[in-house]
Amino acid sequence: MAIRYPNGRKYIPEAGTHKPPVKNHTYSNRGMSLEEELNETNQYYLANNMACVHKKPTPLQIVKVDYPQRSAAVIREAYFKQPATTDYNGVYKGKYIDFEAKETQNKTSFPLQNFHPHQIHHMEQVLGHGGIAFVIIRFAQQDEVYLLEAEHVIAYWNKQMAGERKSIPKREIEEKGHRIETGYHPRIRYLDILDTLYFS
Amino acid sequence: MAIRYPNGRKYIPEAGTHKPPVKNHTYSNRGMSLEEELNETNQYYLANNMACVHKKPTPLQIVKVDYPQRSAAVIREAYFKQPATTDYNGVYKGKYIDFEAKETQNKTSFPLQNFHPHQIHHMEQVLGHGGIAFVIIRFAQQDEVYLLEAEHVIAYWNKQMAGERKSIPKREIEEKGHRIETGYHPRIRYLDILDTLYFS
Repeated sequence: MAIRYPNGRKYIPEAGTHKPPVKNHTYSNRGMSLEEELNETNQYYLANNMACVHKKPTPLQIVKVDYPQRSAAVIREAYFKQPATTDYNGVYKGKYIDFEAKETQNKTSFPLQNFHPHQIHHMEQVLGHGGIAFVIIRFAQQDEVYLLEAEHVIAYWNKQMAGERKSIPKREIEEKGHRIETGYHPRIRYLDILDTLYFS
Repeated sequence: MAIRYPNGRKYIPEAGTHKPPVKNHTYSNRGMSLEEELNETNQYYLANNMACVHKKPTPLQIVKVDYPQRSAAVIREAYFKQPATTDYNGVYKGKYIDFEAKETQNKTSFPLQNFHPHQIHHMEQVLGHGGIAFVIIRFAQQDEVYLLEAEHVIAYWNKQMAGERKSIPKREIEEKGHRIETGYHPRIRYLDILDTLYFS
């Protein structure tokens, strides 16, 4: 199924593409998106031999490809597909880790519509196979970043399915989740939280 | 860097795309590519709650996107990028597993040029962080599939870098690797090999 992605927002090209990234006003005042900060963080972790975590490429449905003589193949028609999994995964201290990262402009709660149903299902499967699954949520207005274990996200999702509220109150994320220290190198120190939760 | 991919061969659309897959004569007589068989295998493992392993999407450099009114965004210019990692990863019995799958028409050896240098480097990093890394190699002419642990692949790669031979003799893959039983459900039973090697 071809979809607008993500959630009807315009696609922001990755660093290194031919066009400059579109200025996105939903981002925090540092001028980097959560995705960019996590990519930098993962590069830092990789370069310093701390963890091996990568963002998965954006899934596309390719329809038409041109093969010009003596130059690179050009994709001329393709569509964004809904991802079957979360965006990030990798290995840390021998364990499989898997997460999704989301940013909200909302000041008091995190809307669950930020997730696709199959991302929730994927997190359940990861937990079922003994992996570590979580989400990283940034409240852009306050520039606060939290790690919330997938168990909690799944519980809120199921409550929503049962007709309860469609968002997670920020207050509960503060209580049940874990504030991630942010800085410059690395920007989003999520491994520190994992150490406390799973490796101590 | 925009590249022809993979290795100058034409792109084969995934199942479910608008155009029928191009008939590729490099495939075995079953009519399925190694990738398709592994996707089916991983779906089987997922559905039967045995492992959670996915193929990563093909990485693309998106240059131009159209946003027609009231319909899905259309990518009008994009290029294949070299993957930074291997194609498959996931979680099995709590452990991180990571692999690349390759097929050769060669009857007596597997050419190392089938790998990108950063895929080899990625496998080294996975091993360094305590993950399980390997390659799945199909000799299409004989329709034989082998699992070869990344340690061996890296050793052959380093020998090649030192000026030695540019391929792994099939005989040595038979000795050092592990023949994977193939069937219909699942098609490529690689978890059986992992059980013997890492979980017994």
